Amino acid sequence: MNTVKYNTITTNPEMEACELANHIGETVRLHGAVYKIRRMSGFAFVLLRMRDAVVQCVYSEESASFPLNLLAEEACVRLTAEIVAEERSRTGYELRLKNAQVLSAPYEELPIVINQKKVNTSLENLLDYRPITLRNEKERAIFRIQAAICTAFREFLNMEHFTEIHSPKIAAIGAEGGANIFKLPYFGKEAYLAQSPQFYKQMMVGVFERVFEIAPVFRAEKHDTSRHLNEYTSVDFEMGYIESFEEIMAAENRMLIHCTAFLKEHCEAELALLGCTLPEIGEIPHIPFAAAKEWIAGSCHRKITDMLDFEPEEERLLCGLVKKETGSEFVFVTHYPSAKRPFYAMDDPQSPEKTLSFDLLFRGLEITTGGQRIHSYEEQLQKLHARGMHEELFEGYLMLHKYSVPPHGGLGLGLERFTAQLLGFENVRSTALFPRDLHRLMP
Amino acid sequence: MNTVKYNTITTNPEMEACELANHIGETVRLHGAVYKIRRMSGFAFVLLRMRDAVVQCVYSEESASFPLNLLAEEACVRLTAEIVAEERSRTGYELRLKNAQVLSAPYEELPIVINQKKVNTSLENLLDYRPITLRNEKERAIFRIQAAICTAFREFLNMEHFTEIHSPKIAAIGAEGGANIFKLPYFGKEAYLAQSPQFYKQMMVGVFERVFEIAPVFRAEKHDTSRHLNEYTSVDFEMGYIESFEEIMAAENRMLIHCTAFLKEHCEAELALLGCTLPEIGEIPHIPFAAAKEWIAGSCHRKITDMLDFEPEEERLLCGLVKKETGSEFVFVTHYPSAKRPFYAMDDPQSPEKTLSFDLLFRGLEITTGGQRIHSYEEQLQKLHARGMHEELFEGYLMLHKYSVPPHGGLGLGLERFTAQLLGFENVRSTALFPRDLHRLMP
Repeated sequence: MNTVKYNTITTNPEMEACELANHIGETVRLHGAVYKIRRMSGFAFVLLRMRDAVVQCVYSEESASFPLNLLAEEACVRLTAEIVAEERSRTGYELRLKNAQVLSAPYEELPIVINQKKVNTSLENLLDYRPITLRNEKERAIFRIQAAICTAFREFLNMEHFTEIHSPKIAAIGAEGGANIFKLPYFGKEAYLAQSPQFYKQMMVGVFERVFEIAPVFRAEKHDTSRHLNEYTSVDFEMGYIESFEEIMAAENRMLIHCTAFLKEHCEAELALLGCTLPEIGEIPHIPFAAAKEWIAGSCHRKITDMLDFEPEEERLLCGLVKKETGSEFVFVTHYPSAKRPFYAMDDPQSPEKTLSFDLLFRGLEITTGGQRIHSYEEQLQKLHARGMHEELFEGYLMLHKYSVPPHGGLGLGLERFTAQLLGFENVRSTALFPRDLHRLMP
Repeated sequence: MNTVKYNTITTNPEMEACELANHIGETVRLHGAVYKIRRMSGFAFVLLRMRDAVVQCVYSEESASFPLNLLAEEACVRLTAEIVAEERSRTGYELRLKNAQVLSAPYEELPIVINQKKVNTSLENLLDYRPITLRNEKERAIFRIQAAICTAFREFLNMEHFTEIHSPKIAAIGAEGGANIFKLPYFGKEAYLAQSPQFYKQMMVGVFERVFEIAPVFRAEKHDTSRHLNEYTSVDFEMGYIESFEEIMAAENRMLIHCTAFLKEHCEAELALLGCTLPEIGEIPHIPFAAAKEWIAGSCHRKITDMLDFEPEEERLLCGLVKKETGSEFVFVTHYPSAKRPFYAMDDPQSPEKTLSFDLLFRGLEITTGGQRIHSYEEQLQKLHARGMHEELFEGYLMLHKYSVPPHGGLGLGLERFTAQLLGFENVRSTALFPRDLHRLMP
């Protein structure tokens, strides 16, 4: 029998963009998609979209063995080029094309221009043509940064002894309850899509003490706003043996510091391309919900109309006030009213109409909800009953409390919201690869 | 305003099990769940289930300031103990309990014994009581290893320049088509749950060249076997600019070598607990499907009844033959018949009734399906039409081919199946945290 040559280097014998500067004077092989052709007098610039960057090649009839019209924009090619030292170039070298092999050519012209600095079109169009608009250098930078955010989060969570879990997305009951759940028929039964891994991560605290999951969640909310998606990626963690819910906030604070340091190291080019300035994160300030409400009302001369929650405008105003007073672009709001928090939230023993919970606001938007959970079986039953909920429906979940779980809490962070706030996008759809909303189910 | 003390070390001032040996002679604090109490004459052993291991403490009335009956099995506790050198102990020390604080106690006795070497019960029971049976030392070791497998895969894929993506799980059309899709109502439209990220990872090859995703997929298959789950975690990658589909197999070969090396380094205790021997992975042998069929028939005196696919028994027999001949516990089977592969599979130019595809079998079971995909727009249209499929339904997907994508291919590996084969479980439900099947939707 033959065997696979696993360590063959023919897998990718071509250069990465980042290696080119080390090979001045050599003739090298490259591959990528023709991003743009700029015809000049007597020569042309051919921009090649490589895996890691867009690089500029120079075409001239004298040095190239092929006609320029062999190359169409978006054609996928293998190229041979000589790397020649060139002081006037920003990179210190010039890539002179010698040979080209077209691997695949577009069938027709692109319906939308993607090779300008940015794709100049409506968000609707940008999303309708996502498979090709993502090829724009700035568009793809967003998602390379998003991938790095996940890598950074996981690195941090592994370092702090969290174990990764994979909880089911089809379930017999929704964690948050209410009307905002997608239902589906499941072999003659009715099932739901998970709104969060809440129950499962709590169960797993009894097993691993600290767990995390980065996975899709589903919300059938009918909100048609720039902040809502009906499917998004939730970064969830849950930790046991806490002595106060502030430990969860401290863990998130450390995670965010780790993340920005990681991005600074690994995504410099992408951040520069998007003109993004990373926030300086120190010790994030926190303020109780009620105090925040009053502060906003007092400072901004607004009437408080909703004592139980923030209006979006209030979140923006609060972030402005906090930034002015402390310099921080993040703020934890704590002690949300019990009435607005789920049945598993732990009430504050000092004032039971409030919960030991928090949201994290970043640049005017809530990106995280978290808090301490009830761990006592009797307390949990009592709260279920007080809300008119049926304990029979929560049999599996309540095993957790019945057979003892340590004091614990955790949080969920919306990956697309965090990315949007970090990179300065107004609409969370901009930072979802293929967003799902009230009107959008394709592509 | 106050700030969160992110770098406070009060978060987790207690010891991890792995640190104890470095603190002989000291009095330390620990936390965990009381796993088991063994009453001896005049003293007792208290096994504490800590985050990283189960450790044995010694209780005696002389050294402890609390009565033994303060501790119930599964109670979550903080303990103070003195670490005393003790030659007769396997660890070289003895943990003498001094103080105990009960953080949370079970409400009633456990309905199932979880603190024996293994949980002695049926698989059904094991799964019905998952929130507590997972607390068994061996049960949780399975999922610590599974988490490490994911970490190893991601580490490898990042190293080889793959970018992580998050593709939508709710979509307007199923990648594999057919009857095995879960449908759900979506704001007045009909939607489907993704059977695989196939279309999206192919689209993203045009953007990042190499992409991966580890995420749930959903299959409404009515198979009630030990190999099938209706929701599972799929490890998917897709790579562009390949010169042959064997490069994909070579990449998987490297990924598996990286994974076993990682497990050897990070999961020694868990592997030992489960009595698992990691496979030695060299260059994995490969054999064409038709040749494998004949080999099995000839060597095992079986009639070939299905020329298009393997029967489960044939997969087991083939693995036996391969192991005998080459020593390998893995085998790639290549060139599956076109009739059994999806419409995006690339046919072999030499014999178009076969595809440039492969499965990877491991210890008798298929754990991966992969292959090269069609990249030419016209070829893809032709194959769609030949199968009587409607191109209008694939508008978004076909943008990929229309506007040029490099030659590419990839694979999907079932995380639960791989874990099961690696650890020697006969039923894939054993390696899913909360499995979903025809009959199981809870817990």
